[in-house]
Amino acid sequence: MSTLVNPSSLLVTGTIGIDTVETPSSRADRVLGGSASYFAAAASRLAPVRLVGVVGEDWPAHHRALLESLEGVDLRGLETRAGGKTFAWGGKYLVNMNDRETLFTELGVVAEAPPTVPAAFANSKLVFLGNTHPEVQLGLLKQVPQRTLAVADTMDLWINIAHDSLVALLGNIDGILLNDSEAMHLTGIRNAVSAGRRILAYGPQFVVVKKGEHGAVLVHRDGVAAVPAFPAEADMVVDPTGAGDTFAGGFMAHLARTGKTDFETMQTALSWGTVMASFTIAAFSLDGVARVTRAELESRYRDFARVARV
Amino acid sequence: MSTLVNPSSLLVTGTIGIDTVETPSSRADRVLGGSASYFAAAASRLAPVRLVGVVGEDWPAHHRALLESLEGVDLRGLETRAGGKTFAWGGKYLVNMNDRETLFTELGVVAEAPPTVPAAFANSKLVFLGNTHPEVQLGLLKQVPQRTLAVADTMDLWINIAHDSLVALLGNIDGILLNDSEAMHLTGIRNAVSAGRRILAYGPQFVVVKKGEHGAVLVHRDGVAAVPAFPAEADMVVDPTGAGDTFAGGFMAHLARTGKTDFETMQTALSWGTVMASFTIAAFSLDGVARVTRAELESRYRDFARVARV
Repeated sequence: MSTLVNPSSLLVTGTIGIDTVETPSSRADRVLGGSASYFAAAASRLAPVRLVGVVGEDWPAHHRALLESLEGVDLRGLETRAGGKTFAWGGKYLVNMNDRETLFTELGVVAEAPPTVPAAFANSKLVFLGNTHPEVQLGLLKQVPQRTLAVADTMDLWINIAHDSLVALLGNIDGILLNDSEAMHLTGIRNAVSAGRRILAYGPQFVVVKKGEHGAVLVHRDGVAAVPAFPAEADMVVDPTGAGDTFAGGFMAHLARTGKTDFETMQTALSWGTVMASFTIAAFSLDGVARVTRAELESRYRDFARVARV
Repeated sequence: MSTLVNPSSLLVTGTIGIDTVETPSSRADRVLGGSASYFAAAASRLAPVRLVGVVGEDWPAHHRALLESLEGVDLRGLETRAGGKTFAWGGKYLVNMNDRETLFTELGVVAEAPPTVPAAFANSKLVFLGNTHPEVQLGLLKQVPQRTLAVADTMDLWINIAHDSLVALLGNIDGILLNDSEAMHLTGIRNAVSAGRRILAYGPQFVVVKKGEHGAVLVHRDGVAAVPAFPAEADMVVDPTGAGDTFAGGFMAHLARTGKTDFETMQTALSWGTVMASFTIAAFSLDGVARVTRAELESRYRDFARVARV
């Protein structure tokens, strides 16, 4: 797992969406969203990233322009499907800014054939499989045969309706990132560390249990690590959408840029994920993480290290 | 706040109880409990501690023997009240080992006149006021006129029925430790950092928001700090009773033994509180924390520093 990785070879697959988000104090209509968009925007702040995804003909030109404006994001794996409709999601955050209701989901092209990994990306070393049906994730994974580290996200839906496929996927990947509620749902264990340990038995080397405002826990065959979230004040939290995806983007990009995937490097990568998420929640859509400079990231990282030192 | 403190001058006031605890897999009948017992047992592992509390004539001799066996606990402030009944509490933990139901509370002597701080303790420098009516806490505080740092715990009951007294107490103390749900209840703010900040406006220099399995946040006039909990596996958690009180004991005793009460020392004290709580939950009653050796504490502290490093 500790081989040197070409820093240009991080690949992400996932959704590119049109999001409509309501919060108690504001709203954003038909803004750029989706797991691959958020991941790529965050990862690109630290390392080049290759994006694989599919949009419909209705995808707004300014969304494309925004992704294209992100230095370090390679869009050669972005397919625009003739006659297709772009994935669209609407959600509403409750007063606590943690729980949310989904108002609508229009799968569009996500319900059709998955995208293809272009030949130019087949030599990617680090792969992040954004949340989708585990059989689709496995199909995408097979198109990256030179990978050295494959990590996936998942969600409750697949635990419910594609449990066996998810278990099969877990036998073919090195790590998984999921929410605490999902980890408990998958294992039936109401303890993040023990749930993570149980998931390791399916095959992965590590599990990152994301706990939102309570931070994250890394359960790795070589050890356990825990970080709090960045202690954001209430008025810093504008829109939590994408926090988990940008956490994953920061985490994976730190591995990509260091060329290391050992436990200690992953422990530090938790903090980079935390830093990315702290910028994401401070604005709608990708605005928080797309705008941030390297100097701002490093300053926030130092702040976090000071706040979370033990 | 940074004056040198005599390490023998930490004082705790609070309950000494007879606890009956049910967990999904086990139970303990009429064991030693209460906030002052737990606090003193934990604090005494690091620094001498003076206990002020009251029990009834029915208090079991083996409970007294257990407290007396703890090196470093000064029991000259322990009153045995003629004709009184000892505070007794019964609780039942749900499967998640986090939520609990109170089965019964027999206030006994706790509903009568509060204990008195003996003259020998009046020169105490660090004071921890365990949870009780805020007017009683204020009355106890006035009996320690040479204090340099006063910290209190509280609970939802007092926020509901003695709000103004609690606010008055906050104007007379340096810090408060409370649960996240209590911080939100007191302030109406569903964000630990912002709720802590609001509580500072009532007068204290710092607030520690305890989040149980999710760790703790220190909101101090000089900065913010956050720690995760020690990542205990499910089978390590035998009985969470007293985790918060022993967290407080470890926190305050670290201040007492260092003689410092600045922000950086409090940040380190969060970790000592975390370490103490991790031993408490591993056994019923005071067993986990009363038995632990200095070497085991230091080893757990190193483990925690490794797990939680950023």
